[in-house]
Amino acid sequence: MAHTTGNLNQPQDADILETPLREQRVFEGTLIDVHHMVVRLPDGREALREIVRHKGAAAVVPVDDQGYVTLVRQHRVVVDTVTLEIPAGKLDHAAEDPYTCAVRELEEETGLVAQTLTLLCPMITTPGFCTERVRIYLATGLTKSAAHPDADEFLHTVRMPLAQAVAMVMRAEIADGKTALGLLMAWAKLGLGAVPASLPPTP
Amino acid sequence: MAHTTGNLNQPQDADILETPLREQRVFEGTLIDVHHMVVRLPDGREALREIVRHKGAAAVVPVDDQGYVTLVRQHRVVVDTVTLEIPAGKLDHAAEDPYTCAVRELEEETGLVAQTLTLLCPMITTPGFCTERVRIYLATGLTKSAAHPDADEFLHTVRMPLAQAVAMVMRAEIADGKTALGLLMAWAKLGLGAVPASLPPTP
Repeated sequence: MAHTTGNLNQPQDADILETPLREQRVFEGTLIDVHHMVVRLPDGREALREIVRHKGAAAVVPVDDQGYVTLVRQHRVVVDTVTLEIPAGKLDHAAEDPYTCAVRELEEETGLVAQTLTLLCPMITTPGFCTERVRIYLATGLTKSAAHPDADEFLHTVRMPLAQAVAMVMRAEIADGKTALGLLMAWAKLGLGAVPASLPPTP
Repeated sequence: MAHTTGNLNQPQDADILETPLREQRVFEGTLIDVHHMVVRLPDGREALREIVRHKGAAAVVPVDDQGYVTLVRQHRVVVDTVTLEIPAGKLDHAAEDPYTCAVRELEEETGLVAQTLTLLCPMITTPGFCTERVRIYLATGLTKSAAHPDADEFLHTVRMPLAQAVAMVMRAEIADGKTALGLLMAWAKLGLGAVPASLPPTP
């Protein structure tokens, strides 16, 4: 039985459902595994689905009482890019509560401790081939302790007005999916009105 | 030399840059490959980066003159979920122009032809371990022909007010990353004001 997002599990979905027939692991990695799943298509034929299995992650949009957001600048060598991202990290294991992970990653990367974490989106990063979900939280009521990143994690924290970060999203200057989505959802959730799409570029 | 998103390639980034030393393919799949890259960390030590290589994709938020968006409902067996997504598809090959891909996928999945496609976001889906980028476009000036999905693609199209789709994002009922981000960016780009976070649930 397929889960749905929202109220989408409707009778007329019967003719789009795929039935998993068999699955085997074809690659075992350090971070991800790859599985091959054979499914029965709605028209009776069989097809192969290549699946990247990932434990999942949590991410946090930390907005302080001054309306500033704290982001991290990282070299993502995988995409050969220096990115500006919301604090985030992988779950320790697939069953870890994403809330616990969010609290830990926020403090590790930024030194921030939040009074309130509110789930914004249980984001599916790329549902065509990967099981990863990133739970994105809004963090408010922030106080500061000391950051202590993992030993192989090198990053800078960047604090800026949330309005400026949102404008950077609208100018396509922030391309990381969870970050762009989290910033726009935080802006809306906080009831800040229309998105400031036309702020001048960052000096 | 690392690329940056926006104006982030700053001198103080020197102490966060990782240097790729060697890379080998450890798995060759039908859709993705997995590589192991050894990098030199800023502190001189070496670390392994596991990389899922993917050709990339394009996605389209099609908003018609009545303010309605056309979405597709699909069974994503990889995440065992029926999702509501913006029309999207993989690039035919890594060098394909994402604009061409967006035009094709929009017409294949929905039968819609757009007068104007505007890039909203060159989204990086999950920069920690995957090279995939999804270029998300806003499509306007829409006319309708006949949809003709790929032979192994089963989906329903769903047309609804953009305001309703955006409210579903804010209620966490739409979890696909590119879809949630694309809808919120389209709303802002079209200058529609504050996001309607509190519409009543879809009947």
